[in-house]
Formats: sequence, C-alpha cells, structure tokens
Amino acid sequence: MNFDLADAIGLLRRTPPVLRALVSDLPDAWLRSTEGSDTWSPFDIVGHLIVGERTDWMPRARIILEHGEARPFDPFDRFAQVKESQGKSLGQLLDDFARLRKENLVALHALNLQPEDMVRRGKHPELGVVTLDQLLATWAVHDLTHLHQISRVMAHQYRDAVGPWIAYLGVLHCNGHSA
Amino acid sequence: MNFDLADAIGLLRRTPPVLRALVSDLPDAWLRSTEGSDTWSPFDIVGHLIVGERTDWMPRARIILEHGEARPFDPFDRFAQVKESQGKSLGQLLDDFARLRKENLVALHALNLQPEDMVRRGKHPELGVVTLDQLLATWAVHDLTHLHQISRVMAHQYRDAVGPWIAYLGVLHCNGHSA
Repeated sequence: MNFDLADAIGLLRRTPPVLRALVSDLPDAWLRSTEGSDTWSPFDIVGHLIVGERTDWMPRARIILEHGEARPFDPFDRFAQVKESQGKSLGQLLDDFARLRKENLVALHALNLQPEDMVRRGKHPELGVVTLDQLLATWAVHDLTHLHQISRVMAHQYRDAVGPWIAYLGVLHCNGHSA
Repeated sequence: MNFDLADAIGLLRRTPPVLRALVSDLPDAWLRSTEGSDTWSPFDIVGHLIVGERTDWMPRARIILEHGEARPFDPFDRFAQVKESQGKSLGQLLDDFARLRKENLVALHALNLQPEDMVRRGKHPELGVVTLDQLLATWAVHDLTHLHQISRVMAHQYRDAVGPWIAYLGVLHCNGHSA
C-alpha cells in the first residue's frame, strides 16, 4: 500500500485511546512486568512513546524540511524514558502521551504538506538517506510495533498458566524481533 | 505469574473497547487487507473472536464443570467467521463482540467459581487433559494473540512505505507464529 498522509494521521490519532483502553488501571503485576532482564514493561513502553513525540518524529520532519540532507537527525535515545518516567503514574504518562500526540498532529497539519514535499530527503545517522513520507509511515508503524510488543509482554505473564494451549497461541512464540 | 480469576476478567473486559478504538472507521484499505493469501484481515479477526465467544470459551468451561474428562470439547471451527461475517458491517461485528463478551463475563461470574474448581479437568480433542484455569488463562491470551496479529497485519500494509526503517521495526519481522 502506498503512503497516504490522511490515512497515516488516522492511525496516529488512534494510538492514545487504544493504549488507554488497553493499560489503564491494569494491576501492577501486568503493568510493570517485563519479558526478562533488559526488556520493557507496558509502563516503560508508554514512556518510550512519549520520548518519541518529544524528540523524534516532528523534530525530524522539521529537520528534513529546513535542512534536507545537510543536517543528519539527532540520534534517538531509546532509554530516556527510564529517567523521565520515574515517579510518574501511568495515568500521567497516558495523559502526557495523548496531549503530545495531539499537539504534534496539529503541528503536522499546519505544515500543509504537499505531494512534492513527501519525497524531500533527510539523513538518518545510521540508515542514510530517507524521505519525509518514509519518516511519517514509520511514525505510524512504530505505534503498531509497540502495540504488538505490549500485547506480547502482557501475554508472556500467562505463559505457564495456559498449559498445553501454548502450542496454539502465536503471541507466545514471538521472540520480539527487536533490532 | 499464577492465574488469577479477577485479573483475567480484568483483561477480558478490555478487549471490546480496545478493538473498537483500534479498528472503528478504519479505511477499508487497512480493514480488509491481509498478509497474503490464506491470512486474515482485521475484519476477519473480529469475526473469529465472535465465534470464540459463541462456541469456545464458556461452552468449554461448562463441559469441564458438567462432564469433566468424560466428554471431550467440540472441535473449534477456525473458519466459521468467513460465512458468519458475510454481509455484516464492522460496526455490527464490534457491537456483537462487545455484547457476547459482556454476556459471557456475566455468566462466568454467575458460576461463582471457587479455587478448587480451577483445577477441574477436561479433555481437549487434540491437546488432551487441560484444567479450567488453563482454559480461562487461554481465553485472555487468545485476545492478546489477536491484538498482536491485528497490529502486525496493519503494519504489513506499510512494509514498503517505511523504506530503510524496516530494519528497526520489530512488528515487520514477525512471521505470525501461528500453529
């Protein structure tokens, strides 16, 4: 499927209510549990999505529009949420994420992007040349990657509880696939 | 984590609103697209969850409580939704699923299950002996398996659109893991 800005915005808009429905008031045993050392809990993942809203997607879109390939993106800190989420409640994080996402979609709309803007090029510090439409498609798929991850982390907590049904439950055979 | 009935119900209750937030009013290009031949779209998956509410989880719980291992479960039809969903809108399917899930959770509560009931045994036609708590844990993880699948199927539609970022997006490296 080709990238379509309106469709991608339609996906990006969904993620805050989906997350709220999925993890609000989740018992701590589910919310704070991971898949083992150096893996993330649903709480960690919401924090990571917030960092992306602040430092990744729209800042990078602006770098493409203002500097093109001349200025590589700042590297993204995959662990910033450890410090930033400390002492916050899940409710605060969900509110922060919803507010930042809304502000970013308002800002994206205000850019009034035209079809010819979509192929403008930027420079990723590791991946090299990328285009604006690839950045925006990645923003949407990044949400889906973490929804995929949260459902897997939650399922993992019942890995033993399902007994022989483990054979049929695909989510319990997913190894995460993270780079 | 050990199985806990109240926690499992807490998860089961979430799935209808999560699905509604995730797929309501999704453009058809996302809603009806699959990962290739013989794979399911988000629309198909909602239909499959409805069939489970009607024929799988609570009927099997009742077979365990009434017949134990003496009567194996009826086999589950993994393709019933193809016929049953035909001609229905996504809105109808989401409403049906929410209603059936609610009815089933009311019926589950009415069983007034005690800790000693949780280890009662039944017979799965392929997996052999299973316990009631394993069935109920599987009900919850089955929801998560299909949430995991929907996020993967949706992401798949932007597999090419994300360009070089495919390297970092775990959901695009998931092969489904289905039995």
